[in-house]
Amino acid sequence: MDDRNLDPRMTETRRPMDAHQTLLSRLVKETTSKIVLLVLDGVGDLRTAEQPQTALEAANLPNFDALAKASSLGRLVPVATGITPGSGPGHLALFGYDPALPENDIGRGVLEALGLGLSIGPQDVAARGNFATADADGLLTDRRAGRITTSECERLSGRLRQGLAGQDLLGLDVEVHAGEGHRFVLLLRGNGLDASIADTDPQVTGKAPLTPRAKHPEAAQTADKVAHLVSIMEAILADEPKANRVLLRGFSKPPSLPSWGDLYKLRCGAFAGYPLYRGVADACGMEVVPCGKRFADLLDVVEQRFDDFDFFFLHVKQTDAAGEDGDLATKVAVLEEVDADLHRLLALGPDVLAVTGDHSTPAPMAAHSWHPVPLLLQATHCFVDDCDAFDESQATRGTLGTLPARDLVGLMLAHADRLKKFGA
Amino acid sequence: MDDRNLDPRMTETRRPMDAHQTLLSRLVKETTSKIVLLVLDGVGDLRTAEQPQTALEAANLPNFDALAKASSLGRLVPVATGITPGSGPGHLALFGYDPALPENDIGRGVLEALGLGLSIGPQDVAARGNFATADADGLLTDRRAGRITTSECERLSGRLRQGLAGQDLLGLDVEVHAGEGHRFVLLLRGNGLDASIADTDPQVTGKAPLTPRAKHPEAAQTADKVAHLVSIMEAILADEPKANRVLLRGFSKPPSLPSWGDLYKLRCGAFAGYPLYRGVADACGMEVVPCGKRFADLLDVVEQRFDDFDFFFLHVKQTDAAGEDGDLATKVAVLEEVDADLHRLLALGPDVLAVTGDHSTPAPMAAHSWHPVPLLLQATHCFVDDCDAFDESQATRGTLGTLPARDLVGLMLAHADRLKKFGA
Repeated sequence: MDDRNLDPRMTETRRPMDAHQTLLSRLVKETTSKIVLLVLDGVGDLRTAEQPQTALEAANLPNFDALAKASSLGRLVPVATGITPGSGPGHLALFGYDPALPENDIGRGVLEALGLGLSIGPQDVAARGNFATADADGLLTDRRAGRITTSECERLSGRLRQGLAGQDLLGLDVEVHAGEGHRFVLLLRGNGLDASIADTDPQVTGKAPLTPRAKHPEAAQTADKVAHLVSIMEAILADEPKANRVLLRGFSKPPSLPSWGDLYKLRCGAFAGYPLYRGVADACGMEVVPCGKRFADLLDVVEQRFDDFDFFFLHVKQTDAAGEDGDLATKVAVLEEVDADLHRLLALGPDVLAVTGDHSTPAPMAAHSWHPVPLLLQATHCFVDDCDAFDESQATRGTLGTLPARDLVGLMLAHADRLKKFGA
Repeated sequence: MDDRNLDPRMTETRRPMDAHQTLLSRLVKETTSKIVLLVLDGVGDLRTAEQPQTALEAANLPNFDALAKASSLGRLVPVATGITPGSGPGHLALFGYDPALPENDIGRGVLEALGLGLSIGPQDVAARGNFATADADGLLTDRRAGRITTSECERLSGRLRQGLAGQDLLGLDVEVHAGEGHRFVLLLRGNGLDASIADTDPQVTGKAPLTPRAKHPEAAQTADKVAHLVSIMEAILADEPKANRVLLRGFSKPPSLPSWGDLYKLRCGAFAGYPLYRGVADACGMEVVPCGKRFADLLDVVEQRFDDFDFFFLHVKQTDAAGEDGDLATKVAVLEEVDADLHRLLALGPDVLAVTGDHSTPAPMAAHSWHPVPLLLQATHCFVDDCDAFDESQATRGTLGTLPARDLVGLMLAHADRLKKFGA
């Protein structure tokens, strides 16, 4: 059958897809329908003795309530029962990849680099850097250099670039890119680089930064080059009052994820205000569209670009940030902010709208958690269940049931009429 | 990352873990939290036309009701939908092993031997024995020798040991250990033993015991040795009025299960009054703590040893025994007995308390069944759902949903703050 023939580009240049993706991919058909996935980062919350209502329950969400009455509800389990995902695995799962497979692992360095919009080749190595402060004995006194400003970080990064120009870097081609605050990205290009380098951040003050160390013998040469590079960087920064050291973490090469465009024949736009989420979307082959940070800012750009894509990934970060702070009131306020502008999204008339989170960030825990995440799915042929609000307990008895997050892609494609019948 | 490096002892001396165990194991962190798993054997029951209430519904359980109001409820499927587990697979699943994998199979002989506290090497073979009665023609008249007493069984076992001493057993090193009633354990040591020997119990009276038979050619030599051994044993017992035959079942070698201590970095104590459950816990690497048979007896020992372990497996057998007898009233009474002493368990202040069964034993069936088993989970960060009693129908709409029993380990570890975040 024709629909069993995979695009030859995929099998040639990318690793084989897993069985789940293969099945969806071979059934995909192209239509003009539009799918919107609105991720409220960390939206899932808890009822405990001290906090008797979740954020979704405590918030006044008249527009979500109305939507829920015309939608299907359910819950997503991000990675596996009991597993608390980081943002990378949480989003990979929402995008249909199995984050527990080693080949789907996106290293922290790569995530940060992608988030800054850097172009990383398949053989390049990226690391996340911190500017830090050491005393006269070389012992760390501040692992974040007093949380310097972003503009100060840009000055320091520029100084490193200037200082490194013309130096003998043992064949390394090095880029230093300022991030937010004390953070930067180190991008390494060259022949035969191996990313298996241990972090140089000792994680505590009072110790010297660790020497770059190979995790296995094949990475020894790369580790030596990085050690040489770090010594040059520290010489350049020696007279800085705060930022006289660099700490490197998450050395990694980009994973070769099968791209959404190839898998599902969709033009995908990612609308996210923060680097990490842009990075994951980019790694999945979505076009990262520049936009601001709040829900209204995302909508401004989505409205302009609605003709340009079939699939829209919208990422609202502030729910997670409030949850991480243990700040229920702010989490509630963010949800009410999204609710107030929800009409703008609905006015665009997406054929499928899915609203969920990449994981729970319950305010009582002030951290990511393993608890299932509520899911709302609105489409012409969704089963209108008995739920009349978008919250955890209604979602528990919704018609979609409790599913692995990886199943969401199939649900969205099906409701968008983008999957052919399986078999005769 | 360091947390991806598995303990080398595991990979060297034990078979590789499955992907589920590997993921949990690599995320495990050590904390001081304590986890209690209370297994009410066969607790799940049925509502039928003849029995309109399950045992949990019919019982008066004020303490479980109060606990349920502050807990998460859900259901566990022991092995797979429609599969009725024996006690071994039921417990293996609760302990996070996939009982459907052949390498996780614990033979009946090994279970019985472990339950008696015998030490079995990886190449030893254990079988469960019955003393039985045959008539002058060698045909069985009673497969349990008139259900002789345990002390009579001890006398007979001693007689066998004495009689076997000094005999030519073709290189077999043989141990006979009395069990309860008519049961004993036969433990065989020697070079190149193969456990693929068919049962010698014909399962009906009026037939002679079966000759030990190899299930495949590689076991032929072992079968010959066992046949020789049985003939000697029957000669020794020839003048016994009742116990003049032995029936052997469940020839098996111990599985090499990855141990809980290695997998999850927990000091595990097993508190079970009956041999089989001690045996399974021992096979999973838990320390079997001597204790009595009723819930109050278990608590006496748990209270004494609460500082010595991080994980406590408590096994209450009487729910299952009543279910097997089709005796709803007794099953209800056992549940009320547990409820009355529940405060003693709660007073110890476990960080995580999980209450469930290894399978259902519905009184209307008077047997194990495949029906999902209710689960109650109490912890600081459990989602307090809308359930206000611990029973099957409330559990059906609990926030934990219906999960494979193997997922319980991840839930308990997560709620005990013993799992690191997965990825950045």
